[in-house]
Amino acid sequence: MGLNLTQKILKDHLVEGELNVGSEIGIKIDQTLTQDSTGTMAYLQLEAMEIDQVKTKKSVAYIDHNMLQQSFENADDHKYIQTVAHKHGVYFSKPGNGICHQVHLERFGVPGETLLGSDSHTPTNGGIGMIAIGAGGLDVAVAMGGGTYFINMPKVVNVHLTGQLKPFVTAKDIILEVLRRLTVKGGVGRVIEYTGEGIRSLSVPERATITNMGAELGATTSIFPSDDITKEFLKAQDRESDWKELLPDTDATYDEVVEINLDELEPLVALPHSPDAVEKVSEVAGIKVDQVAIGSCTNSSYMDLMKVAKILKGKTVHKDVSLVIAPGSKQVLNMIAENGALGDIIASGARILESGCGPCIGMGQAPANNAVSLRTFNRNFKGRCGTTSAGVYLLSPETAAISAITGELTDPRAVEGNIEVPMPERFLINDNLIVDPSTNPEEVEVVKGPNIKPFPLNEALKETVEGKALIKVEDNITTDHIMPSNASLLPYRSNIPHLANYCLTPCDPEFPSRAKENNGGMVIGGDNYGQGSSREHAALAPLYLGIKAVIVKSFARIHKANLINSGILPLTFVNVDDYDKIDVDDVLEIDNAIDQVKNGEVIVTNKTKNETYTTSIDLTEKEKNIILVGGKINFIKKQNA
Amino acid sequence: MGLNLTQKILKDHLVEGELNVGSEIGIKIDQTLTQDSTGTMAYLQLEAMEIDQVKTKKSVAYIDHNMLQQSFENADDHKYIQTVAHKHGVYFSKPGNGICHQVHLERFGVPGETLLGSDSHTPTNGGIGMIAIGAGGLDVAVAMGGGTYFINMPKVVNVHLTGQLKPFVTAKDIILEVLRRLTVKGGVGRVIEYTGEGIRSLSVPERATITNMGAELGATTSIFPSDDITKEFLKAQDRESDWKELLPDTDATYDEVVEINLDELEPLVALPHSPDAVEKVSEVAGIKVDQVAIGSCTNSSYMDLMKVAKILKGKTVHKDVSLVIAPGSKQVLNMIAENGALGDIIASGARILESGCGPCIGMGQAPANNAVSLRTFNRNFKGRCGTTSAGVYLLSPETAAISAITGELTDPRAVEGNIEVPMPERFLINDNLIVDPSTNPEEVEVVKGPNIKPFPLNEALKETVEGKALIKVEDNITTDHIMPSNASLLPYRSNIPHLANYCLTPCDPEFPSRAKENNGGMVIGGDNYGQGSSREHAALAPLYLGIKAVIVKSFARIHKANLINSGILPLTFVNVDDYDKIDVDDVLEIDNAIDQVKNGEVIVTNKTKNETYTTSIDLTEKEKNIILVGGKINFIKKQNA
Repeated sequence: MGLNLTQKILKDHLVEGELNVGSEIGIKIDQTLTQDSTGTMAYLQLEAMEIDQVKTKKSVAYIDHNMLQQSFENADDHKYIQTVAHKHGVYFSKPGNGICHQVHLERFGVPGETLLGSDSHTPTNGGIGMIAIGAGGLDVAVAMGGGTYFINMPKVVNVHLTGQLKPFVTAKDIILEVLRRLTVKGGVGRVIEYTGEGIRSLSVPERATITNMGAELGATTSIFPSDDITKEFLKAQDRESDWKELLPDTDATYDEVVEINLDELEPLVALPHSPDAVEKVSEVAGIKVDQVAIGSCTNSSYMDLMKVAKILKGKTVHKDVSLVIAPGSKQVLNMIAENGALGDIIASGARILESGCGPCIGMGQAPANNAVSLRTFNRNFKGRCGTTSAGVYLLSPETAAISAITGELTDPRAVEGNIEVPMPERFLINDNLIVDPSTNPEEVEVVKGPNIKPFPLNEALKETVEGKALIKVEDNITTDHIMPSNASLLPYRSNIPHLANYCLTPCDPEFPSRAKENNGGMVIGGDNYGQGSSREHAALAPLYLGIKAVIVKSFARIHKANLINSGILPLTFVNVDDYDKIDVDDVLEIDNAIDQVKNGEVIVTNKTKNETYTTSIDLTEKEKNIILVGGKINFIKKQNA
Repeated sequence: MGLNLTQKILKDHLVEGELNVGSEIGIKIDQTLTQDSTGTMAYLQLEAMEIDQVKTKKSVAYIDHNMLQQSFENADDHKYIQTVAHKHGVYFSKPGNGICHQVHLERFGVPGETLLGSDSHTPTNGGIGMIAIGAGGLDVAVAMGGGTYFINMPKVVNVHLTGQLKPFVTAKDIILEVLRRLTVKGGVGRVIEYTGEGIRSLSVPERATITNMGAELGATTSIFPSDDITKEFLKAQDRESDWKELLPDTDATYDEVVEINLDELEPLVALPHSPDAVEKVSEVAGIKVDQVAIGSCTNSSYMDLMKVAKILKGKTVHKDVSLVIAPGSKQVLNMIAENGALGDIIASGARILESGCGPCIGMGQAPANNAVSLRTFNRNFKGRCGTTSAGVYLLSPETAAISAITGELTDPRAVEGNIEVPMPERFLINDNLIVDPSTNPEEVEVVKGPNIKPFPLNEALKETVEGKALIKVEDNITTDHIMPSNASLLPYRSNIPHLANYCLTPCDPEFPSRAKENNGGMVIGGDNYGQGSSREHAALAPLYLGIKAVIVKSFARIHKANLINSGILPLTFVNVDDYDKIDVDDVLEIDNAIDQVKNGEVIVTNKTKNETYTTSIDLTEKEKNIILVGGKINFIKKQNA
């Protein structure tokens, strides 16, 4: 039986397990990427694992998130990442070189290889035929060290494209259509694989727009074949040698199939506040606009900005609109500066931002209160733009550009003339913002400014685990409760001691100080504890505060994994009524902890109330070993030793 | 007897007084400018004075300070300023159009006219032969309403330039030499007037660099004649009709004279942390550099950036250096985008920032800890860059550019080849980011988002003034103590209720809440109360908190004026030992207040201790009237009525 492309690449990289949907597989990772808001932690973890030189084919550290530099923290982080990358065999992309996914596509991505990135939009490089997956910093650090990456084998969904896009209908409209049909949960546990005659008319940057925003489906990743179009793109990047043809077998099968006829598509827009709240632009046109933002890892390619320039040329941005444009990379910016398109864009009245994530992650350009902001980005969750009362609309660069001129949401088919842009035969190639790894790594001094704090590391599990119940929280506590993240805390992602001062404070402002006074302790929670964002900081901050066990009615999956990675016991009440019996400040104790963890049942004694509670600890054999040695880093160190 | 240029223009605009050094004169203001961090307050004051249409020849509102927009406040302020300007006859320069002083020079400045601006670098337009003075927002608002501006007639210092600059020695080096000789206090109470054959070889942008940084001398303003070179510049801006010749009389006299021979100058640099800590670059060269920043209202002209582009062309920024460049205006950015220079700059690895103040005011690009940052800016006070431990060096764009390549502070005479740039015969003129005043002002709705709070307004002085002593502070309290300003508070300059929560908190964190609980009261202080920055927010926040009198051993001059403008009684102890007798929470009372203020002696009764203290209130007749009606805005409203 034939294989689809996803299966082919996974099979090529399979280290453990079998390709049966739902079962755990271990795959070899060829490339890694990090960005700066997750990267500092990943490199601290790499250092903690005592890995001298990365073992991947290529690892790249990008600076693209924290570039505003309102205080010293960002620049300190940049310097740390630059020096630690230089020492450990990692390429360093300086601030200004562009958004990780865009630059990676241009300069590093290789069809058929695997890419693990500490950013949720890592699937962008699926546009070039990679299996590209977003993961936590520790997983990326392990992969840099040569470790296997484990996932459950996803279903493979075939999105089969027929027909061809009409003028002013774009790749963005394709992925918005997929989101409209499948919703933001439709991709969970799935890889989205694109096939059909319709892909023949999509350039690599267009494909990358689609795979990028596959993240909003909740998909593991998205992928396009590597074909002649891919070859052309790589050739134009002077990387033809990186190309190889990669197609699904003609008799490939898929777990699910979605048919989209491109002929029938028209310009679409996702309304506030969800990427799947998709409508036709023609049906909601006319809304008065305050801000238009073009850029982000979704829509900031050379082709995107050339089309924008053609629409803006000779026009003026509406007086009530602030148009901001952040090109995706230095390559893009340099090319449009050289060919005159940037001059046209500036002349129209656009504000040019640095090549980085910027407003897409709420780092600058927050709109006014109640403003309408049209963005070519990938997410429009309430408040993400920095202004809770603003409404963000997601749409194509073409729709954004024409609306910036008219001052209202406008169907781009109103644009006169042809704005087609041919794929350049050769991109402007100048990698002088990429610093190669050192050839004398032992001489490189890693610079850790005061914002870079050592990574908290657990100890092997003790026979007796004791501590007070420091906090008792309700059902559905999210990782935003456990470790808040906002524009003022984001610069501290490499500073767990600072972040720890905000741990669980939305539930109880006194929690961090109480944890410190008591030298740590335990957390008591309800159902679905740790839902939401996968940030590992929600386990690292408790680890720093000395939390030894979290006892709850039930866990959200990823947070439980993060607790295990940190060596914190994730216990669930066997009898949920026991939750009610514990009060804050009760002294809890687990005797004979090592054997109990091995057995999977853990008796917790309440010494204050002279009671005992039975809890279960549900771990794979590997996870048990991780808990016993005090977390994944200790585990990897032992493995490597 | 002949007049110098300063005397000529002041004489032309004299409304009150005589041109005798030290005596008060009132002058008519032709033009005003505001920027956004002071502008919101100025327009709130304009509204409070109930002025429908500005009475100046031209008033312009710029957005250039708060452009990062990390939260909704900046965008709210932009929208308020845009709409209030539109309604009241003020031109509005949208964010992205550039730094107020640069744009004003390009598009609005007129030789021989007076310009009052709510920014300390307003003297920049002295480069075009204006009397251009920085002032508080209220003074600018009064001037917009047609009110006279009062200053004490300054001394006029003649800086007489002979010779001609050698290659790679620049206008920046001239003003650094003036700073080296006169120090940062050398210009206080003075206008600096440039003459001599040396000025014949200085273009208008070069002259503007010099007048701009005259602010660092503490000068009232600086001025160059309006000559053929000025004419050429205005012609190239399509504004030849704004030109007229303005020279000092041949027999003009000056209060002081400084001679500088340009032949003898060499590249200079101001070391951390003062603009007058000036050394020769050749003598301190070799310092390893972490960051280089080019831009600011001092050095961001077309000519500056063209020279930078020529130095950077074909080179690469040193791997350990972050080079950031913020062009001064959209005109500059657009021109270098069109002629290819921007492409050269980008290719070298520079990061391009928006046309605005940016890093010069600590709004972004804070360097790493202990970093060395070379900047073409005008101020290098400790911490102003956002990083207290960093050292900022002030120097020319040429020195900055070559140092960015070498990675160390480098004498620009090391650059090979000729980087001379001819003055363009015609600048690229496109004012589409300037919104003209409305022709239907009554139809314009002024939009005040939640960050725009009504301006606090005092009431007429009551017969009895009573209140607790809410705080007692020591000698030398600065306006930074009274009203702190930093990157996190700067977005709230139009929100006095929010700022008031930080009033005097560096002295006593409980002061704001105590003031609110007690419905206001009085402040007790020592010598030199209110020294430092002239910000009027240091009077407005106390006004908001209900402070009725400030009783001290002595006042700093400008803060006392701001208290008067706010209608707060500025009282000084006749017997300084009385300071020791008052404790916090003592209830103080002033009976028969109106007559006492008129007489200049005010008896304060301490009802808690049954004591009385004699204080003096030293006011001009006009100031007495301002105090009696409850501040300058009420005074102007009465005058206009």
